[in-house]
This record gives sequence, structure tokens and C-alpha cells, in this order.
Amino acid sequence: MSAPIAHGGGITAAAVAFGGRPEDWLDLSTGINPCPVALPDIPARAWHRLPDRHFVDEASRAARDHYGCGEILPLPVPGTQSAIQLLPRLIQADDTIAVTDERVAVTDSRVAVVSPTYGEYARAFASAGFAVDTVDDLAAIGSEHRLAIVVNPNNPDGRVWPAEMLIALHGRMKSANGFLVVDEAFGDADPALSLTSRAPQLPNLIIFRSFGKFFGLAGLRLGFAIARDDILARFEDWLGPWAVSGPALSIAGSLLRSDVSPIRGRINERCAGLHGVLKGAGLQISGGTALFTLVADARAGDIYTHLCRHHILVRKFDYAPDWLRFGLTPDPAADRRLGEALQRFER
Amino acid sequence: MSAPIAHGGGITAAAVAFGGRPEDWLDLSTGINPCPVALPDIPARAWHRLPDRHFVDEASRAARDHYGCGEILPLPVPGTQSAIQLLPRLIQADDTIAVTDERVAVTDSRVAVVSPTYGEYARAFASAGFAVDTVDDLAAIGSEHRLAIVVNPNNPDGRVWPAEMLIALHGRMKSANGFLVVDEAFGDADPALSLTSRAPQLPNLIIFRSFGKFFGLAGLRLGFAIARDDILARFEDWLGPWAVSGPALSIAGSLLRSDVSPIRGRINERCAGLHGVLKGAGLQISGGTALFTLVADARAGDIYTHLCRHHILVRKFDYAPDWLRFGLTPDPAADRRLGEALQRFER
Repeated sequence: MSAPIAHGGGITAAAVAFGGRPEDWLDLSTGINPCPVALPDIPARAWHRLPDRHFVDEASRAARDHYGCGEILPLPVPGTQSAIQLLPRLIQADDTIAVTDERVAVTDSRVAVVSPTYGEYARAFASAGFAVDTVDDLAAIGSEHRLAIVVNPNNPDGRVWPAEMLIALHGRMKSANGFLVVDEAFGDADPALSLTSRAPQLPNLIIFRSFGKFFGLAGLRLGFAIARDDILARFEDWLGPWAVSGPALSIAGSLLRSDVSPIRGRINERCAGLHGVLKGAGLQISGGTALFTLVADARAGDIYTHLCRHHILVRKFDYAPDWLRFGLTPDPAADRRLGEALQRFER
Repeated sequence: MSAPIAHGGGITAAAVAFGGRPEDWLDLSTGINPCPVALPDIPARAWHRLPDRHFVDEASRAARDHYGCGEILPLPVPGTQSAIQLLPRLIQADDTIAVTDERVAVTDSRVAVVSPTYGEYARAFASAGFAVDTVDDLAAIGSEHRLAIVVNPNNPDGRVWPAEMLIALHGRMKSANGFLVVDEAFGDADPALSLTSRAPQLPNLIIFRSFGKFFGLAGLRLGFAIARDDILARFEDWLGPWAVSGPALSIAGSLLRSDVSPIRGRINERCAGLHGVLKGAGLQISGGTALFTLVADARAGDIYTHLCRHHILVRKFDYAPDWLRFGLTPDPAADRRLGEALQRFER
């Protein structure tokens, strides 16, 4: 068992340390849309019955049309995290086909994670006994890597890899019998960056999409895996039947068929509000996506603590003590609250 | 990948084969309470935010008090099925501690499933490369078995093993460094049968509880694992963070602290109604629990098809062609509908 990673969303722990009721804190520690859409109607059977094939297929088809992945029917998973947990098995299972002495092969398998990024990838592979190389460029990924992970756009710095570079990397992975995982968890705000429409032509590509971040429904636990049939069949087999809740499948079936441009507009508006506050406070924006903004500042640790004292939680990073990640503020009042707290920071 | 098991709940497929709109079918193919309780209020943050530690702990404490498992804090899992999928890893992981050449040890490990029972146990272990012995008596479980599975009360025949026999089996498993899994998915109607209160004194015991069957909320995907800390920590690590949805945790936190005797009363009333119909039709009840009834009849296959023509789905069993399992009818009108359909069966 490896040590857990400290993620955003730890308002309860922050309130214990700095006081205040958790519900009175301003939580800017996640990359989740803070202006959730209204919940669509959820039919009674979604709650009461096992989510059978029919429910799963409806959500899959809605996801296929929404993400534009052609003949691929995306697999609903109970949060992208659940698929990350299974990724090591994908190359273990593959090794049992390719080589005789599986154990040795697994130990020799290396995985590349374009870093810094979401920490759960490295944790899952290290926990399964793989050697994990954290690389900062696609060029550092070589034939020794059975699987490569690129979060695009990246979390927390928002770095974007052009589609053509990722397609070239896929070609290299494929020719070495390896896989490319592209996590598009923050890809909804700018669909032009996505590889989903190319996925049917890229057999060794696995794309993860997050449902909860963009729609502001992270509590639902829903993501989609987009890949060729036999890869998705393995994930489905490992997850077992009824992996995703009925309400999640039902809500996805509705919202993925709705017009999402108002959601995108609202996110962009909130992002502009947050940028205004941060710039007004003299902070330097060094990256981000529509759903979060990265600030680089030598005083990051002190700003973090200062904001906690004002019951505002942002995200800090052990590996980059100069960074702070700010999630979107829910409304202009929250912009003002953040702005006032930042103004009081002792320079 | 092993072949999927045909489970109850396949109304969509049945309607394709026999006509009718799925919503007009009477679904008696599952063991889920057909009279679900009213949903408690679900706070907005349960939908919108990641289900953090606070939410998980609230549900765990409610489950501990409800199931009466003393100092053990049950682990919420996204449906018992998700924990079944992970069970093979438990003895694989254990072997890495115990022996040097893990691969050989795993291949040599045998698992005992007291059968016939819920098919996903044998499937999960066979799929992971274990030899599975289906045994019909606890006495057939020996020191060659690294893990034994007992569903109590059993599905589909309702067979019950007395607590003292299970505790004796646990002692034998423990002395051979093995585990006993007791699946109490249908244990809510008769809590006196449960081992939960003994769990703190039985270190090699793992109990699974289902939330959705008794409360009629199977779409939520929620179950609980009850075992010693280090076993639950492994399951938690394998599932990864935020495995269970916020709405499921929130609903469990409320309902597990409510008075469930009206639910139990209603289930017993519905069970009596179903028994009346089955006996009135001259069928022989051979087993069951409060949530389902098993009928043994040489004409079972024909009765199944006859009921499908009346758009009533029950459960048949490939391995026991004389058996039919009837889930609870939701109300007296459904009792009459089933009774009338059975009366029309050509003898």
C-alpha cells in the first residue's frame, strides 16, 4: 500500500486546523465547476433497480455523440479514478499474452508519466510494481515504456500538447506494442484540443473523459473511457456488472445530449472573474485551464496559510512550493471575498 | 475474460423477445425490495463535490451502528460486486508476503464456494486464475482452501448456516492462514443470523453487506465490507479515492440511522402475499429469504416462458432447470396479476 495523495476537497480537515464551519469555507481547492447545472429528472427506476444494459447503453450513446468518437461506444466508469486503478492490469494482462515468464516481464515494464501532473497515475503504477519514469517531454518517452500517460490539458499547469504530437507519440507506442493514455479530464472547455474524433483510427490510444468536473457533478462519480472494443471489454470485465450508479447514468444520458454552451460560457465568465482578482492582487498567472488557474509565487506557502486563516482553501503542491492552484469562484461575491483576503496579505 | 453471467433485471432483453414496453413488465427477476423507501434529502454538496473523507466517515459510522459491528468501521464500496472483483487480489497480495515465488503459490491456491450460489464469486476467482471448488457443505472446505465463500442466507435457495458453524469454519480457515467471506446481502430481514457483532473477534472474517437490496435502492451502488483494519485498508487502496458516490453516502448516512422496522414489516407483508399466490397456484416453495422465494417444479422452464408471455419476468437457473426464483411483488395488484397468469398455465 502506498501513501495516499493529498487532493483538493479537504475542507473538513482545513476547518479542523483553521476553524470555521466547513460549509462557510470558500473551497477553491478543486478543478470542479462551482456553478453546477440543474439536475435533470431522474426516473425512479434509476434509483431502485440495478442499472441494467439499457441504462448503460443510453449513457454510452449519449457520450459517443457528445464526445464525437465515431463508432466507439465510450465505457462509463465510476469516476476516471476507477479506470486509473485498473490501468496497471492492462499491461499486466497484455504481458501474459506476449511473454512466458509474466512476473519478470511485469517487473521490467516501465511506464512514462508526463509530469508534473495528477499524482494518482504514478501512485497506481508504482503500487502495482511498475517502474515509473516521470518525464517532462514527449520526446523522453521511448521504446522501453509499455505505457505513456499524458494529461491534456495538464493539471495543474494547463500545458497543452498539440494533437499531431500526441498522434506521433501514439504511433511510436503502437509500434513497440505499447499504449498511450490521454486524460482529457479538463478537455471540455476547449473541445478542439481533444483526440476523441481521432480515436477510432488510433488503436493503442485510451482516452479518459471526466463527467463531473465540467458539469459540476463530481459527487456522481462518472467518467468515460474511449478506446478500441477489446480494451474497453477488459475494463468492463474488471469493473464487473453495474459498476456505475443508475442516477449517474441517467443524468449523463440527459446532460450529454443538452446544449452545453451556456455551461462553457459560465465557466469562461467565472475564469475571467478569477483572473481579474488574481491580477488585481499582483499575482502572476503561470498556467491553468478554464476550470483552474495556476499561480507561481515565491510566497506561495505563506499565501496558502493566509488564505486558510480567511477560510479560503486553495491547492498547494509539495513538489512545487512556489505554486498555488485556484479553482473557480462560484460568483462575483466570492471573487470579492478572495480579493479582499488577498489584499490583506502582508507583502 | 470469462463469459458474463445472466442476472436478474434483464427486462429490456425480455421485452425485445416477448414484446411489450419494458415499463409495463412485472419484474420479479431480482431480490430487490420493490417498495423503496422515500429518498431522504440529499445536500447539494453530495452531488457537486468530490465525496471527501467527511462523507465517507459519516456513512461508515452509520453503518457501524446499524450493523452493530463494534469497533469496526465498515468500508463503503460501490456495490458489493466491486468488492467481489477485488477478492482475488486479497489472496494474491497475501501470498506475496507469505512465499517467495508468488506466481506458483497463486496458481496453487484453491478457493471454496459453498454452492449453488451467486455466480459472480466463482467467475471472479476463475477469471483471476484460481482453482474454484464448488462445495455443498462447510465440511468440504479444507486446509487446501485459501479462501472460502458462504452466502448467508444463501441466494437462491435461502439456506442458512448457523453462526456457530461459521465461527468454527473461520477458526479452521484462520489456522491455515486463510480467509472466510460471509456475504450477508440478504441478511437484513433477519439480523439475528448475522455475524456482524462477532466480527471484531474474528480476524480472518470478511462480511459483505448490501445496502440497495433491503432499502430498494439498488441503483445507488452501495455495499459495505466489514473486516479488520488492514484488510479494509487494502480494499480502500485498490478502489482508490472517491469510490462511492456522494448521493449514495449521503442517503446511507440518513437511512441507516432511521427506524427500519416499517421496511422489514412491509417486506414480510409482501413476502406473505407472494407465498399466497404461489401456493394458490399449486407451486411448491422450496426455499428463499424475505426478499425472494424459490420454487421447485419440473415444469419450471415452461412456467418461465408462460410468464414471459404475460410480461412477467422471473429468474431461471441453467444449473437447476427445475428452479424458479420469484422476487417480491410490489403490491396486491401485482399479486393478482401474477396469480391470474399462473392460473392460465396449462397443466
